Amino acid sequence: MLSKENISEYFKTLQDDICRAIEITDGKAKFQEDNWQHHSGGGGRTRIITNGNIIEKGGVNFSVVMGETSDALQKQLKLDEKADYFATGISIVQHPISPMVPIIHMNVRYFEMSNGISWFGGGIDLTPHYVVDEDARWFHQQLKDACDKHDFDAYKKYKEWADNYFYIPHRQETRGVGGVFFDYLKPLGTKGEQTNDKNTKEDIFDFVKSIGESFAPIYTHLMAKNAQIPYGEEEKTWQMLRRGRYVEFNLAWDRGTKFGLETNGRTESILMSLPPVANWVYDYKPQANSLEERTLSLLKKGIDWI
Amino acid sequence: MLSKENISEYFKTLQDDICRAIEITDGKAKFQEDNWQHHSGGGGRTRIITNGNIIEKGGVNFSVVMGETSDALQKQLKLDEKADYFATGISIVQHPISPMVPIIHMNVRYFEMSNGISWFGGGIDLTPHYVVDEDARWFHQQLKDACDKHDFDAYKKYKEWADNYFYIPHRQETRGVGGVFFDYLKPLGTKGEQTNDKNTKEDIFDFVKSIGESFAPIYTHLMAKNAQIPYGEEEKTWQMLRRGRYVEFNLAWDRGTKFGLETNGRTESILMSLPPVANWVYDYKPQANSLEERTLSLLKKGIDWI
Repeated sequence: MLSKENISEYFKTLQDDICRAIEITDGKAKFQEDNWQHHSGGGGRTRIITNGNIIEKGGVNFSVVMGETSDALQKQLKLDEKADYFATGISIVQHPISPMVPIIHMNVRYFEMSNGISWFGGGIDLTPHYVVDEDARWFHQQLKDACDKHDFDAYKKYKEWADNYFYIPHRQETRGVGGVFFDYLKPLGTKGEQTNDKNTKEDIFDFVKSIGESFAPIYTHLMAKNAQIPYGEEEKTWQMLRRGRYVEFNLAWDRGTKFGLETNGRTESILMSLPPVANWVYDYKPQANSLEERTLSLLKKGIDWI
Repeated sequence: MLSKENISEYFKTLQDDICRAIEITDGKAKFQEDNWQHHSGGGGRTRIITNGNIIEKGGVNFSVVMGETSDALQKQLKLDEKADYFATGISIVQHPISPMVPIIHMNVRYFEMSNGISWFGGGIDLTPHYVVDEDARWFHQQLKDACDKHDFDAYKKYKEWADNYFYIPHRQETRGVGGVFFDYLKPLGTKGEQTNDKNTKEDIFDFVKSIGESFAPIYTHLMAKNAQIPYGEEEKTWQMLRRGRYVEFNLAWDRGTKFGLETNGRTESILMSLPPVANWVYDYKPQANSLEERTLSLLKKGIDWI
């Protein structure tokens, strides 16, 4: 029987594996670890990497927190009554030095309530400063392969969900080239409205594992492939503006970030997603027919990369 | 009889006066103007100053927009039925080059609905990268003087409102040393729940004018007084981190910004408030007994600066 502790232990091991893979590919920087306690119970293991050969600032965070639902959490979850909760997961964001290497984000999580409701959620999405069609296609193919091992509908559904989730309404832009996003995947036979009618807890966990384990091969490939591409001041300027958009999405629209900040989560762990430096220029317009303009034209929902 | 057009015209003139004062004190940069149309009617005059002697990036924006309430606006205003609206105001944020010069924000606004509801709102608040007691005291005294000309309770009430409004819950810090903030000041005899029991439209407008007209003398004084103070890399580093906090407040918590972004306002005018550059460092802690640490200790609600 798959327990919440099994899931949490798995996430912890996955954090180790991912950190090792990033360190090897980066070749210089090592993660610094911070262990912290949560006010209602449990805690986390935040790992931050800075000033590497390839990564400028990144985090790979594990947490397992539990306790009685606070008023804020009860409201967020729209619960009629108090119950104990258990939440565990990994969150990753990597900001590379080079504008030719994409920013990446990954999250896998499991939530369980003492009233019998439980679900999995997660996703991976890629934010290239410059969209490279070959990389975007390859990235989506890796995600499709990971999904197809479990459910031939999953990629299509979760790719669309990512397009809608990683969207910046006030810019009418997607954050990047998307990926997959899923939430409230409730195991068959458990309490609460079902989002699937056939997957057991084990089935969903196997799927989440495939997504989680796809991260390291995907990102280390993109790191190694792109880190040697030369760039100049112009590309750095563009990167700083794209990072500004990343900040705008995370602080103004990302429901995960809002949830964390509003339910008294650990601020420094949540905001590790913010870049080391970001710029804002009033009404910046890329030059006509530039790679920057082309990138903007590809930050749209509904692009079938495969 | 004071009409909405009179109020709007006044704000437009105030924009001219403030831009002139900042340009003279800066001594180098000039505001660039962008005229824009709003989708439901009216428009704005956005003015941006960059790369001056003192100001690195700042905006002084005037707008007068009108039309039928959109669904988003109706929801935001909690209106039972559709009505035409008219909104006019000025918004200002200035990010100086020197960390020794404070960031400042000012807003004055008037809102009127065809169903008879109308109100004034606004405020000024100061965000020093380094809190200088003398400047904070002087700043609050200027605001108190402006308030006291009209109502001896106003400063106390609106200072407290500013402490609560310009607050970053996830950091447990105020944005800066506060100032005054007020909203929903509804004229005597107009529709809607009254927030005051004695002020006519003319009385409130006179008060708003005093606040608006206090801006230029206040900020040009602080610009001129502090711009020549020497600083080094350490102070610049701290400034970049404080600007990060400014971004966090504006994108995650500022109701004005959220309102604008969610009701399809002009994004570039709203986000002129963001700094040209901001930094984030994981779990940055200032040195013990440093000026940075002292500043953090003063970013609290309820400090009586006068």
